[in-house]
Amino acid sequence: MSYIEELGKKAKKASVEIASASTEQKNKALRFIADALRENKQKILDENKKDIENAKQNGISDVMTDRLMLNEKRIDSIADAVVALTSLADPVGEVISGHTHQNGMKIERVRVPLGVIGIIYESRPNVTVDAAALCIKAGNAVILRGGKEAINSNKCLVGIMREAIAKSGLSMDIVDVITDTSHETANEFMRCNKYVDVLIPRGSARLISACVQNATVPVIETGTGNCHIFIDETADIEKAIEITDNGKTQRPSVCNAVESLVVHKNIAEKILPLIKAKLDEHNVEIRGCERTLAILGKSDKVVPATEEDYYTEFLDYIISCKIVDSLDEAIEHISEHTTHHSECIVTESFSNAEKFLNSIDAAAVYVNASTRFTDGEVFGLGAEIGISTQKLHARGPMGLRELTTIKYLIRGNGQIR
Amino acid sequence: MSYIEELGKKAKKASVEIASASTEQKNKALRFIADALRENKQKILDENKKDIENAKQNGISDVMTDRLMLNEKRIDSIADAVVALTSLADPVGEVISGHTHQNGMKIERVRVPLGVIGIIYESRPNVTVDAAALCIKAGNAVILRGGKEAINSNKCLVGIMREAIAKSGLSMDIVDVITDTSHETANEFMRCNKYVDVLIPRGSARLISACVQNATVPVIETGTGNCHIFIDETADIEKAIEITDNGKTQRPSVCNAVESLVVHKNIAEKILPLIKAKLDEHNVEIRGCERTLAILGKSDKVVPATEEDYYTEFLDYIISCKIVDSLDEAIEHISEHTTHHSECIVTESFSNAEKFLNSIDAAAVYVNASTRFTDGEVFGLGAEIGISTQKLHARGPMGLRELTTIKYLIRGNGQIR
Repeated sequence: MSYIEELGKKAKKASVEIASASTEQKNKALRFIADALRENKQKILDENKKDIENAKQNGISDVMTDRLMLNEKRIDSIADAVVALTSLADPVGEVISGHTHQNGMKIERVRVPLGVIGIIYESRPNVTVDAAALCIKAGNAVILRGGKEAINSNKCLVGIMREAIAKSGLSMDIVDVITDTSHETANEFMRCNKYVDVLIPRGSARLISACVQNATVPVIETGTGNCHIFIDETADIEKAIEITDNGKTQRPSVCNAVESLVVHKNIAEKILPLIKAKLDEHNVEIRGCERTLAILGKSDKVVPATEEDYYTEFLDYIISCKIVDSLDEAIEHISEHTTHHSECIVTESFSNAEKFLNSIDAAAVYVNASTRFTDGEVFGLGAEIGISTQKLHARGPMGLRELTTIKYLIRGNGQIR
Repeated sequence: MSYIEELGKKAKKASVEIASASTEQKNKALRFIADALRENKQKILDENKKDIENAKQNGISDVMTDRLMLNEKRIDSIADAVVALTSLADPVGEVISGHTHQNGMKIERVRVPLGVIGIIYESRPNVTVDAAALCIKAGNAVILRGGKEAINSNKCLVGIMREAIAKSGLSMDIVDVITDTSHETANEFMRCNKYVDVLIPRGSARLISACVQNATVPVIETGTGNCHIFIDETADIEKAIEITDNGKTQRPSVCNAVESLVVHKNIAEKILPLIKAKLDEHNVEIRGCERTLAILGKSDKVVPATEEDYYTEFLDYIISCKIVDSLDEAIEHISEHTTHHSECIVTESFSNAEKFLNSIDAAAVYVNASTRFTDGEVFGLGAEIGISTQKLHARGPMGLRELTTIKYLIRGNGQIR
């Protein structure tokens, strides 16, 4: 039996146990995890320091190293997030619907855990705890596969969680980590259908694409957001400026930040200089079409856009800009370049708003509000494990409910067909 | 652009049109399809005859040839099923939930079509029409890839449907068929993520496994049913006999038929001879463990089971039988061999019933009722496109609702974060 099969088999066994654990048992495990994280801060920081030093030796960028880094405050906020989960409603056991068949059988549709969830992610060690805690609350076992640059931190965090879970009375195999970070092991993990029920990749577009290409375990794609704002000819100027600025500059590194501006030709001359003035406050680079450049003039902050730019999630102080002749052309442009995450129209026209809402194929479609609101808390789901940009199972922010499946229970007294 | 890409691109375009078609427009298309099938019976039968003759020349079995065969009555019943869909509620546009955020944004979760659905299936030409009609009613475009043995029938049926759809005023590209039935084309189809949103294989375990192994498009696994009945020591003898007989012999060729009997040792001596007597009426072969053979005696209808037999979906008048020492052993045995379709316990013990319901990981878990009830109509979903045996998106019978996804619509008045 291979390393992955062994991990999988243990996790599957533990998943049966936690599937029928009470909410109180699961909350107890979460509280024990939070306590243990706080008690073991120094140990965590020591291990994290090894990762940071390795990163520096390997010439990893400052931004990446910052993502890797833990400190006392960050550990506290990770522990706080774990405790916060204890106050969320437990989705497991919900009777979603039910009826009595004419032959007398009682048929119920109930919510049950998914089983074993695989999480594949990159450098942030906070994901290790966040993801594990969400899976536990929803009654699942979880196998974590983080990046090799965070391996010391991840091993330490998982060790602490496993001990805390065991102390709480549940099986420690509810959480485990893949310590062999080779590509071969990752590939075997992605094809371990016997033991892994679903794979949730969290990270770069490249990571997610690798999972989709290689996995036979069902994958939930998350997080790539090439989000657009379309400024319709009837847009309120102030709203358009504020929403564009907020979408682009409030936190450019996240998936619901805006990457592309699409502007109706009848409002472009008026609004583009105002938007540029606002974006200049954050030194945003505009990559525009020819008509954009004709209005704004070429400069070090206004450059021609390539076709590639319109497909790019910059995650930076850069925005592409395209002027269109009509709402239809805007919808067409967005439909071609969308990653199906969050798209917005700014308009005062009721008909244009409704047409945009109906025509755009994305997890979240906005009228006159910032795409930055695509978030589990805002959408009423509580904490989220990621934002699904695909259509099966879950779409948009994925909370505890999205970490469950359903099963039909049928109680009869001898019915046959 | 390859053949598959071209098909996909046309279907994607058509999917945008049908996504916003009214229920009445979709029902009209369905009625036109049903009418056209009845009007073109002779043409369909002529094309079907070619497939039947080819099948005979290629030495295909009588059972398989019967599956391929259409006649006037079968065409009528296919058309009736299409008309029946017009009376089902349209899932598209349902507002599943919604709330007003504290900042005033209205956030709604609404049901929308999946987009383009790919159906990969084997010989039955009725699937061509059934599947297409269900996809249309749920607002999707569909690309069909049937077996090469049914290619003449399928091309004819799809041609008739496309004309009928166009006559109804919608785009004929809502339905299309892959006429090149090579493996290369099938593989390209399974990896056409740009245009195909979901793949639903219908057919043998081999076909489904090929899709899971090769597809990058999300797959919904359907239909493999290695279903068990566990006869607990407290079982009512009459119920146990009736449920076993019904599960095995009422229609052995379907996925919710029973394939394996698991019997508590304390009731085995009493019940096994009675069950055998009942199954003898249908000449059922029992493949038993040593203890089964000790009770029933070895004969031409009672033979030793191999470990392989316990994993096998016979779809025939054959049943495996295993005697166990306890409910726990029964659960363990079933958990090892289940295909997660439908599993049943016959018991008069409340606690054992509840334990079985909670512990068995399957789409449908029964107490004292036949597994043959796992069906879209019985479960209150109306017509079904298949029975999902996996956990993501849909589990158990898949009706119109399971052919949709959701999207968040957010209406604001300038909110920013």
